[in-house]
Amino acid sequence: MRDPRYDILFEPVKIGPVTARNRFFQVPHCNGMGYRDPSSQAYMRQVKAEGGWAVVCTEQVEIHPTSDIGPFIELRLWDDQDMPALAKIAEKIHEGGALAGIELAHNGLNSPNLISRETPLAPQHLPVVSWHLDPVQARAMTKSDIADLRHWHLEAVRRSLATGYDIVYVYAGHCLGGLHHFLSRRYNNRTDEYGGTLENRARLLREILEDTVEAVDGRAAVACRITIDELLGDEGINRAEIEDVIGMLGEIPDLWDFVLGSWEDDSVTSRFGPEAGQEPYARGLKQLTTKPVVGVGRFTSPDMMVHQIKSGVLDLIGAARPSIADPFLPKKIETGQLEDIRECIGCNICVSGDFTMSPIRCTQNPTMGEEFRRGWHPERIRPKRSDSHVLVVGAGPAGLEAARSLGNRGYTVSLAEATRVLGGRVERESKLPGLSAWIRVVDYRVQQIRKLDNIEVFMQSEMTVDDIMENDFDHVLLATGSHWRRDGVGRWHTHPLPIAPDAEVLTPDDLMAGVRPQGRRVAIYDDDHYYMGGVLSELLAAEGFDVTLITPAAHVSQWTIHTLEVERIRKRIIRAGVDVKTNAAVTAITGDTVTTACVFTGDESEMQADAVVLVTARLPENQLLDALQARESDWAAAGLKSVQAAGDAWAPATIAAAVWAGHRYAEELDEPADDRPVPFRREVTELSTEAGVLLPITPVESVNSR
Amino acid sequence: MRDPRYDILFEPVKIGPVTARNRFFQVPHCNGMGYRDPSSQAYMRQVKAEGGWAVVCTEQVEIHPTSDIGPFIELRLWDDQDMPALAKIAEKIHEGGALAGIELAHNGLNSPNLISRETPLAPQHLPVVSWHLDPVQARAMTKSDIADLRHWHLEAVRRSLATGYDIVYVYAGHCLGGLHHFLSRRYNNRTDEYGGTLENRARLLREILEDTVEAVDGRAAVACRITIDELLGDEGINRAEIEDVIGMLGEIPDLWDFVLGSWEDDSVTSRFGPEAGQEPYARGLKQLTTKPVVGVGRFTSPDMMVHQIKSGVLDLIGAARPSIADPFLPKKIETGQLEDIRECIGCNICVSGDFTMSPIRCTQNPTMGEEFRRGWHPERIRPKRSDSHVLVVGAGPAGLEAARSLGNRGYTVSLAEATRVLGGRVERESKLPGLSAWIRVVDYRVQQIRKLDNIEVFMQSEMTVDDIMENDFDHVLLATGSHWRRDGVGRWHTHPLPIAPDAEVLTPDDLMAGVRPQGRRVAIYDDDHYYMGGVLSELLAAEGFDVTLITPAAHVSQWTIHTLEVERIRKRIIRAGVDVKTNAAVTAITGDTVTTACVFTGDESEMQADAVVLVTARLPENQLLDALQARESDWAAAGLKSVQAAGDAWAPATIAAAVWAGHRYAEELDEPADDRPVPFRREVTELSTEAGVLLPITPVESVNSR
Repeated sequence: MRDPRYDILFEPVKIGPVTARNRFFQVPHCNGMGYRDPSSQAYMRQVKAEGGWAVVCTEQVEIHPTSDIGPFIELRLWDDQDMPALAKIAEKIHEGGALAGIELAHNGLNSPNLISRETPLAPQHLPVVSWHLDPVQARAMTKSDIADLRHWHLEAVRRSLATGYDIVYVYAGHCLGGLHHFLSRRYNNRTDEYGGTLENRARLLREILEDTVEAVDGRAAVACRITIDELLGDEGINRAEIEDVIGMLGEIPDLWDFVLGSWEDDSVTSRFGPEAGQEPYARGLKQLTTKPVVGVGRFTSPDMMVHQIKSGVLDLIGAARPSIADPFLPKKIETGQLEDIRECIGCNICVSGDFTMSPIRCTQNPTMGEEFRRGWHPERIRPKRSDSHVLVVGAGPAGLEAARSLGNRGYTVSLAEATRVLGGRVERESKLPGLSAWIRVVDYRVQQIRKLDNIEVFMQSEMTVDDIMENDFDHVLLATGSHWRRDGVGRWHTHPLPIAPDAEVLTPDDLMAGVRPQGRRVAIYDDDHYYMGGVLSELLAAEGFDVTLITPAAHVSQWTIHTLEVERIRKRIIRAGVDVKTNAAVTAITGDTVTTACVFTGDESEMQADAVVLVTARLPENQLLDALQARESDWAAAGLKSVQAAGDAWAPATIAAAVWAGHRYAEELDEPADDRPVPFRREVTELSTEAGVLLPITPVESVNSR
Repeated sequence: MRDPRYDILFEPVKIGPVTARNRFFQVPHCNGMGYRDPSSQAYMRQVKAEGGWAVVCTEQVEIHPTSDIGPFIELRLWDDQDMPALAKIAEKIHEGGALAGIELAHNGLNSPNLISRETPLAPQHLPVVSWHLDPVQARAMTKSDIADLRHWHLEAVRRSLATGYDIVYVYAGHCLGGLHHFLSRRYNNRTDEYGGTLENRARLLREILEDTVEAVDGRAAVACRITIDELLGDEGINRAEIEDVIGMLGEIPDLWDFVLGSWEDDSVTSRFGPEAGQEPYARGLKQLTTKPVVGVGRFTSPDMMVHQIKSGVLDLIGAARPSIADPFLPKKIETGQLEDIRECIGCNICVSGDFTMSPIRCTQNPTMGEEFRRGWHPERIRPKRSDSHVLVVGAGPAGLEAARSLGNRGYTVSLAEATRVLGGRVERESKLPGLSAWIRVVDYRVQQIRKLDNIEVFMQSEMTVDDIMENDFDHVLLATGSHWRRDGVGRWHTHPLPIAPDAEVLTPDDLMAGVRPQGRRVAIYDDDHYYMGGVLSELLAAEGFDVTLITPAAHVSQWTIHTLEVERIRKRIIRAGVDVKTNAAVTAITGDTVTTACVFTGDESEMQADAVVLVTARLPENQLLDALQARESDWAAAGLKSVQAAGDAWAPATIAAAVWAGHRYAEELDEPADDRPVPFRREVTELSTEAGVLLPITPVESVNSR
């Protein structure tokens, strides 16, 4: 069973009046479901509790309509109307066996209040710091506003207790709320007792903490989540200041939750930061308080976790992303099943759920967000319904996940891979700069498949229609992937670009296969907008090519706004010496020139380039699907009951989408056909029964006629 | 009463089996409320019906989870679960006296399906054309997919009838759905009977139209909303093609609804296009069908409307924005109250509701979106509750609206304006390039105030504390506006910029007051991100200055993404010769240089500039508020019951927000204090009662252990 060196991770930790059963702590994290999909959230959290996390928290919960952070969909506890949803979440966390934490938040300067239309509140008069630069300014809070805020927080604490939470957060982290703004010189220029000295800037935090401790009155623990360094030197919260803050307030809450800088700083992707990246900042702070300390660091290694405890950095192993990738991470360490851990790859596709207001998804864990919707579970799957033999063609992310999950259901699976390696696009892409952690998607699945003797893997086995028809397969899943287009078709051009016959045009597939441009000057045309164009620029620049990245978007790798990477990518590209041309579409390619058009005016210009890399769109590898469908009339005779494609072979998208599609195939095979138009459970708005809202209708003639 | 020359606008129009009571037709438009706030939408639509529109439509309604256009919040009719909301909307439209229209949509290539996770469907394999460049590709539809789509549309038609709609739309407009994509050469490269010739490309539209006509079977009318020119010449739908389309399909639906190009083309702001801008494109098409035709053009002038009918361009006057600015537009024309019309200013702040997923708001109509939430009505307001005399200080948008609405309630109002003109910032800004239509905000309110003898207006009346205390006012509203900061504080800098004493620094207020830079080289630093920085660049460039626009954002006037203007603004700026430096923050200003820092790397560079215009943030004009509050102990003796500030004087924001705040003051004066934490009605998600969703929980040890 468990290696004794991990015993320390399973020691209970007293957090004020409650006790965590072990040191695993799911810190608050957003999920794109919030107030819209409360049961989806409740079941997702329940699974984590079941997976062994001692504490499972909600995301930030808006305590008042002056803290309306829409369009983002978080939880609300504006008034009693929100309590049933919050109660259900706490109830499900308890059913899973964990303590339930709630992160109360008043977003202040971050909330444009577009839904509530209330004036945002801040330490000083400033434009709101919202993601979309909304034309709204916050107002400097008066003493009366501060009193109101304290009252609202107390009301939220009362509702948190009434809905069953065991740990109530005071949130002063991530530059995402008023308590952070008051604390930081960056936002606080007040001259009253709430500004100036650190003691004054910390006054509101102290008051809210003390209010909260008094209000919970031993019925729940109080946690304080705080930014330990804004990474702005003397212009923001820094080491000296945070030491003084802990010195002043350290004994008030029952728990400290340390975060680093802004959300972008705290949730760095594996492309830009290692596991335990926060350790140098957190080290030494725990010693300033007797209260337990939790912190994150994309921890997936139990040895690293033990190190955090033993070296006195943390008392509790905080996790958001690792708990998403593997809700059963604690249980697997507890039972010694380390090889079964689905390690977070640090891609932040989970974060994109919040930014796109869609239910959280995970590259590693396809069941994330589907616990309530489809009844999926990260560690359990329905047993098979037949003795069918399933052929999975292609061992990329969709094929590997389908094979693994079909194997878990008990099916006999043949997995046929055309090449010498498993992993498909993930194997290829993980060799690109910064993406090495992505190979965990393959490693986990290959490891799991090896344990199942009902899955047979065939390497270097390109399958033909005849191979399939002549063998004894009941079902065939084609997970043959996709290839990058060579014709420039993508978002901007829906028909092929004019490309001269002597032009050297390469695709990401060429580069990943080791092909390199013959000349030195390379233009990369990125009409894909996720990571690939930026990563290939890095690759070629590092190899000494003169690289120009051209994109019709305003940003390099624009969609990585949603993974908190866009600014880091741009900086890295600039530092690599890549020339960037945004807001431009490539309109023609000859042997040594690239013509581009300004996306606003259409004005064209030319630049010299020896080669062009087209990163625009992909086409499914669907020859085998087409060929099999053409012989559908022969299926019955061959014993073939179904042929489907999934993942990029069906429609190219993210790796997360491919893993999800492979999993869906496995979940649904042989299951009764679902004839519902919406193949998942959902919750909709309950209609108000209040009547007579509108003022009485009188003829318009009477208007203004008094 | 009504001028007989407008009689033609009140002729009934037969639309298949139903009859519009007049020619006023509220075409489908989004509103940021959608599936989340169904009753808010229902009451908003009801008010329009009451205001005389013969037909009131929903926004686009997603007919299936493969048409999931999230993060945008539109209506859904995915399955029966959505029917109660749709039924309530139809019911409220009927209560208002109008026909109810529903716009069924399958968004195809536009829907990234991030919530449903289904594969998007399109004529060919292409990346989704979504606003956020999501990393999702659509799949080319097979014959089976086409059959499915026809089935889903029929199911939606069935549900539309069951929920009470009188007009059912088939949507092929705005490049926002599959029927448009199939029709357009831009997106359709198919080689089967659904691609190639125009007849083939129109086949799917024909089939859906015929299906719909057959399914409604005379129980409702069928409308077809179609793009009449994609403005792409031979690369898209053009005049010749649309004539052929109408020639082929013209008699199938009961109504044609003509739109121009994409949404950005169709909903041009007044800054970029005039009233009736679509007329040259629509002219002549009506003659190709016997069926009535509706079209839009930001129509607010009844003469222009009559012209559209009499000259044979349209049969029905379509409106989205004018119906938002004045839901009672038809009634006011009908009753001859033309001077009471609140004309749309064409600012597209309404559109921003959809883009920010927040309830629609309107610069002219502060009750928009508040009909259900707060019981506000555009033409009715509670009678006064006292004989109080109210002083409103400042005749900008907040003050004018407060005075008007207080006057309508019956209060005695004194409106004191410090300058010689009414209108405040609106009066000043409407003189800037492209913003002249904004003066309607002032014109409407001044006109209304003139009609009310209980409002007295005092010009050139700067008020002091003593003036206020010595006069007989019961309540004082300070609507004194704001001024632009001269210190560079905004989003990027939260503390003042280093500015040398000899540097020439101007603000938008200076420029609007007629001050001009002394030198020729001007840098405009835009950290505001709405229209002002771009407009001032235009102004100075047109006057011959060498203008460089510097902004930390990736776009010029970045927030105008939400008003569909960002691309037009950039093009106009470029054409005006303005040099644009994006992703840069000004970090220091001396007499002849501006230092900027790259927002990604922090690397600094210098440029020459004789003057700098700082467009960063504003400060409320709150000296009078502060001074009055300092004398609060004297209020009672002076008979003063309350002093409040509203609009920019409270917290600078949009003109729409100022008008709303002035209106709110008037609505709430003397009303019983609302102690609810949430001062408006709202609807929340109904929790599912389905139990046992998760698969049975078994010990993790059993996982993978078969």
